[in-house]
Amino acid sequence: MASISIPGSTPGGSKIRVGILGASGYTGAELVRMLLRHPNVEIAALTAERQAGKPMAEVFPHLGGYGLPDLVKIEELKWGNLDFIFCALPHGTTQEVVAGLPSGLKVVDLSADFRLTDPAEYATWYGHEHRAVDLQKEVAYGLTEFNRQGVRKARVVANPGCYPTCSLLPLLPLLLENQIEPGGIVIDAKSGVSGAGRDAKQANLFTEVSEGFNAYGVGHHRHMPEIEQELRLAAGRPVTVSFTPHLVPMNRGMMSTIYVRMADGVTADDLRATLAARYADEPFVGVTPAGVVPATRHVRASNHNLIGVVADRAPRSAIIVSVIDNLVKGASGQAIQNMNVMMGLGETTGIDQAPLFP
Amino acid sequence: MASISIPGSTPGGSKIRVGILGASGYTGAELVRMLLRHPNVEIAALTAERQAGKPMAEVFPHLGGYGLPDLVKIEELKWGNLDFIFCALPHGTTQEVVAGLPSGLKVVDLSADFRLTDPAEYATWYGHEHRAVDLQKEVAYGLTEFNRQGVRKARVVANPGCYPTCSLLPLLPLLLENQIEPGGIVIDAKSGVSGAGRDAKQANLFTEVSEGFNAYGVGHHRHMPEIEQELRLAAGRPVTVSFTPHLVPMNRGMMSTIYVRMADGVTADDLRATLAARYADEPFVGVTPAGVVPATRHVRASNHNLIGVVADRAPRSAIIVSVIDNLVKGASGQAIQNMNVMMGLGETTGIDQAPLFP
Amino acid sequence: MASISIPGSTPGGSKIRVGILGASGYTGAELVRMLLRHPNVEIAALTAERQAGKPMAEVFPHLGGYGLPDLVKIEELKWGNLDFIFCALPHGTTQEVVAGLPSGLKVVDLSADFRLTDPAEYATWYGHEHRAVDLQKEVAYGLTEFNRQGVRKARVVANPGCYPTCSLLPLLPLLLENQIEPGGIVIDAKSGVSGAGRDAKQANLFTEVSEGFNAYGVGHHRHMPEIEQELRLAAGRPVTVSFTPHLVPMNRGMMSTIYVRMADGVTADDLRATLAARYADEPFVGVTPAGVVPATRHVRASNHNLIGVVADRAPRSAIIVSVIDNLVKGASGQAIQNMNVMMGLGETTGIDQAPLFP
Amino acid sequence: MASISIPGSTPGGSKIRVGILGASGYTGAELVRMLLRHPNVEIAALTAERQAGKPMAEVFPHLGGYGLPDLVKIEELKWGNLDFIFCALPHGTTQEVVAGLPSGLKVVDLSADFRLTDPAEYATWYGHEHRAVDLQKEVAYGLTEFNRQGVRKARVVANPGCYPTCSLLPLLPLLLENQIEPGGIVIDAKSGVSGAGRDAKQANLFTEVSEGFNAYGVGHHRHMPEIEQELRLAAGRPVTVSFTPHLVPMNRGMMSTIYVRMADGVTADDLRATLAARYADEPFVGVTPAGVVPATRHVRASNHNLIGVVADRAPRSAIIVSVIDNLVKGASGQAIQNMNVMMGLGETTGIDQAPLFP
Repeated sequence: MASISIPGSTPGGSKIRVGILGASGYTGAELVRMLLRHPNVEIAALTAERQAGKPMAEVFPHLGGYGLPDLVKIEELKWGNLDFIFCALPHGTTQEVVAGLPSGLKVVDLSADFRLTDPAEYATWYGHEHRAVDLQKEVAYGLTEFNRQGVRKARVVANPGCYPTCSLLPLLPLLLENQIEPGGIVIDAKSGVSGAGRDAKQANLFTEVSEGFNAYGVGHHRHMPEIEQELRLAAGRPVTVSFTPHLVPMNRGMMSTIYVRMADGVTADDLRATLAARYADEPFVGVTPAGVVPATRHVRASNHNLIGVVADRAPRSAIIVSVIDNLVKGASGQAIQNMNVMMGLGETTGIDQAPLFP
Repeated sequence: MASISIPGSTPGGSKIRVGILGASGYTGAELVRMLLRHPNVEIAALTAERQAGKPMAEVFPHLGGYGLPDLVKIEELKWGNLDFIFCALPHGTTQEVVAGLPSGLKVVDLSADFRLTDPAEYATWYGHEHRAVDLQKEVAYGLTEFNRQGVRKARVVANPGCYPTCSLLPLLPLLLENQIEPGGIVIDAKSGVSGAGRDAKQANLFTEVSEGFNAYGVGHHRHMPEIEQELRLAAGRPVTVSFTPHLVPMNRGMMSTIYVRMADGVTADDLRATLAARYADEPFVGVTPAGVVPATRHVRASNHNLIGVVADRAPRSAIIVSVIDNLVKGASGQAIQNMNVMMGLGETTGIDQAPLFP
Repeated sequence: MASISIPGSTPGGSKIRVGILGASGYTGAELVRMLLRHPNVEIAALTAERQAGKPMAEVFPHLGGYGLPDLVKIEELKWGNLDFIFCALPHGTTQEVVAGLPSGLKVVDLSADFRLTDPAEYATWYGHEHRAVDLQKEVAYGLTEFNRQGVRKARVVANPGCYPTCSLLPLLPLLLENQIEPGGIVIDAKSGVSGAGRDAKQANLFTEVSEGFNAYGVGHHRHMPEIEQELRLAAGRPVTVSFTPHLVPMNRGMMSTIYVRMADGVTADDLRATLAARYADEPFVGVTPAGVVPATRHVRASNHNLIGVVADRAPRSAIIVSVIDNLVKGASGQAIQNMNVMMGLGETTGIDQAPLFP
Repeated sequence: MASISIPGSTPGGSKIRVGILGASGYTGAELVRMLLRHPNVEIAALTAERQAGKPMAEVFPHLGGYGLPDLVKIEELKWGNLDFIFCALPHGTTQEVVAGLPSGLKVVDLSADFRLTDPAEYATWYGHEHRAVDLQKEVAYGLTEFNRQGVRKARVVANPGCYPTCSLLPLLPLLLENQIEPGGIVIDAKSGVSGAGRDAKQANLFTEVSEGFNAYGVGHHRHMPEIEQELRLAAGRPVTVSFTPHLVPMNRGMMSTIYVRMADGVTADDLRATLAARYADEPFVGVTPAGVVPATRHVRASNHNLIGVVADRAPRSAIIVSVIDNLVKGASGQAIQNMNVMMGLGETTGIDQAPLFP
């Protein structure tokens, strides 16, 4: 097979030299898949601790034939050869790595380490003091549609979690417009299995997952404080949500089914109109017409978020359905979207592929 | 292959001669699968309109080799040769068929036709007047664990829907004990695809369903009034639930994730204790210990219902997870359970197989 | 949940007290599932090394509520309390365990340790000398339909591998009747993922397996010499097969698509007639009529084997399709079948359930 | 959602105006998905008979937001507004439509109508005389890697079937180099379900397909004569293959496991070297190193074909494993590849995306 030519990827151009830390996981591979199509990026370095020394194609055979750099350990990197870092390391190990980067290097961090702004809340949910508290203060929360200015100016962006992305995009505009009550919000969320990562765990074996459905982390999932933090900012007061994640026997896709109580006199049509107006100019967020409920397969492998609103029979109640691909808008796609903003590129560059179906 | 001998199925015994109307659908096949193991039953007749004249093994190859009767049309049946009827016909066509049966023949009806007791409510949800209103009045609702006496004396039993079974078993004891509030109950439900039946519909193609997840019937599913009818009886006042069914890419299995508001001073542990006490002597309903949340694969292919209760962080909120196999406890298994009660047999006879995993 | 009563399982009866060594794997759980329904068996002991001390329901939640003994280490067993052993230990560790059992204890071994009768061949394929060569000589190969007398008299039965079972049942009668040539047989085999066991391996994660298909062990799978050993016995001379196993994204099921060259003057109809005659009185092996090709879902969760024969366009060529459930007839079901024969019970006892579909 | 901008798709440019006939099927949707990313193409017309009048987003919700033309009937098209046609109509109806097109319009036909060059063979396999025999003679067979010159000059290209593509790419070089014997080739092929199309058929329901595996068209699949026609051209004499297609419970992906007999003195390493040399400069065909066997998930959603070769234990036998995505290299991707060649564009334009995993 000839090395596959990438449009615009002429050698010698002034491309952004990107390093991906933690490239042996699914979000790392997904970054590579999309960045290979990005005309302004050169994938200059890939790291993985246990797999260091291997060609990327040995770890991910689907990525053979692209002339990717071999996997190395982080300490082997020469930072001066890199312009931008995606950090896809495990939660907990990330904070010290990011804190130790040269101060001129821009970073999108896909872990949870810098998402919570309150160190006390971080310690409560993660069981230890944050080890880079100063850095934490200057980090921008990268829900792009709500923090474009912050992201543009930031050196380090905390890429939102998949569940928060899928839940906040529908909820934030409605809270900001006071169309729903901050109390009593129920978020029943469902995710494909890729969100669980590539580590060999019995619970994630094909035989354990397929032909079944289960809830997990009921009452104590770590995406809950992240959701509540952002809802609190929008509502101007504390918000406690009921949040239950579930595992769907599929690779990709995420849905939040959200039950809200509307403010006096507000209808489901009002909610839909508010969302449609808010996202009219957004390239990645769509609102389905009345009567159409989005499904995860409508956004698979794309950076899209689709939102539908249905009136419930219970008085003042509405049901909101929001879908993303957990690996794209829920992780690597939004990370590239943030890089595009941080580097002054067109926001959709490299992440504008249409969904894959079937 | 030799014809497979069934334990106790000696010819000439005084077995219950059972007829299954509508045997070419999944619930019909599932009745056959379990009744083949039932020592007191002889499968004496199978009907199917379009497939009449065919051997059952042509319609369901997995049921070859059992000497089953060929499929016939209903009008070809000789009622005098039958002792008991399972009616697995489509909703709407059932009521006239059941009304026309000889008055001595006992029936479990798996359709929705006789589940709603209020003719007005039936007309609202099904779009036409009920065509067997008199019969409707004498029908017993067959949620066995809550109506054993009624089922025992009934000639016609309306087998509950799958979603109602999965939702009512956890909710009824809590409402009866006033431990939860009747208002604001959210039932986020998920079902395997077999619930959609065997008719060729594009939406149920493998390619349309697999690797995806979607809600359906949002805000207007017909199992909603059935759930509310039974909750109203338990609560002693009208109940409106928020109910959203979803389709999971799996064949079998159903989960209801239920969000409830507890009465003053009641805890999640109280709810769990109430359920455990209520079902201590029930052969098919189990309550998981604190910290254990049931999954659909724990009950696959069995008549079991498992219920878990988790305290939510939101004050006075609890999350209840209830799982069944939609084709067994949600349909054919419960139908046989009801037959056992109606015919004075051991209630678990023929439906006591352990779950299948993986 | 009340403890579920098992038919005929009255305490104090003279039941066979069974121990299952290696009960924390899928074949162990599958033995339990079926033995729970076996009227002549009491599950008296379950072992698992790493999980010792746990209730079975913690390791396999679907097996809760049956009053099963807790998992213990093998050395904790009191052999005098047991009448029969199923050994479902990993390949390699089995031979010493079985050799160390009291000499009066009958055993069905589900591992590969005693399947090859030639110690040299064992050493070649498994990389070490067999550690129980003497015992190996007295072991009966438990392809029940071909060795009923041997199994009846044996103290130790080597339960065949899943691929050998699925391939030998169609091939042996045809070789014995000289209707096919022993040379040039191609066995293209496909298995569900449960055959890979329950160990946490990255390659068997849901995300790695679903939505994909792959071959494995191409040219060197260890079931090949087992197949060839038995074909050689039938053909009366050495047989080398082309055998390629593949992994199907499903839990259970196995298919062998077999390409054979027919002897002079023999037709595909002759092959089918030979197989039909050979298996006419067998309870578990069926031959489909001309034009009908069996699918794995026709035998799911049952001890059945179905075989179809199709004439190929290439002269003297025929295609044979054979299906089993790899965990039942390919493992635990056939093991119980062998136990029934060894203990003088009805051969179908406890394993006569109909297939599960969908 | 803002209309998503496509790179290079500036209005007013001299883009190729493409019409897709039969856009409501999976290959039609897949053409759209990839052409949306093609910088030299404007999707100018989409047809569908039964769905005419609907927006594409109603038929395929994942394709909403791209400003696609509504579906129309073929007779509503103005041919003068189109530069190029993809014909994705059902087999049989295609030939008259293509024959009736203006003679200046270039066409890639994805149906089987023009693949067989011998009218007698067409009549034998399709049951009727070909209705555009004259046109059939000038059509080029579009296995791009083997007919680039023919495709470049052709007005009408017959896009190969998925099974032929997956089987011919590994076999043709080996036959041309006389490294394998033309007799006794066994092609055991496996396909994802999308190959069966989007028509509502009971056999393709999720519940009928998932958790199972089956062969189909055994001994008489219509891709067999197409494979044999091309092998005959390469071998210089008639070739009869044993070909068995199977259905895998996955959406996309195809594997051919091919058993060949090597010429005297030839080894599996020779086969691999021949293939590697033949495809060294091809952008879409790769040969895996010794010891690596490709899987369908290595090429999912890409236009790649990967080929692995393994020595078999049987003397002079080798096993070849070839994988493609049946909807891309097996259909719509190769169709665009052919369009690129016919229109003088870079051959990989618009179809150079990396595979999607997981």
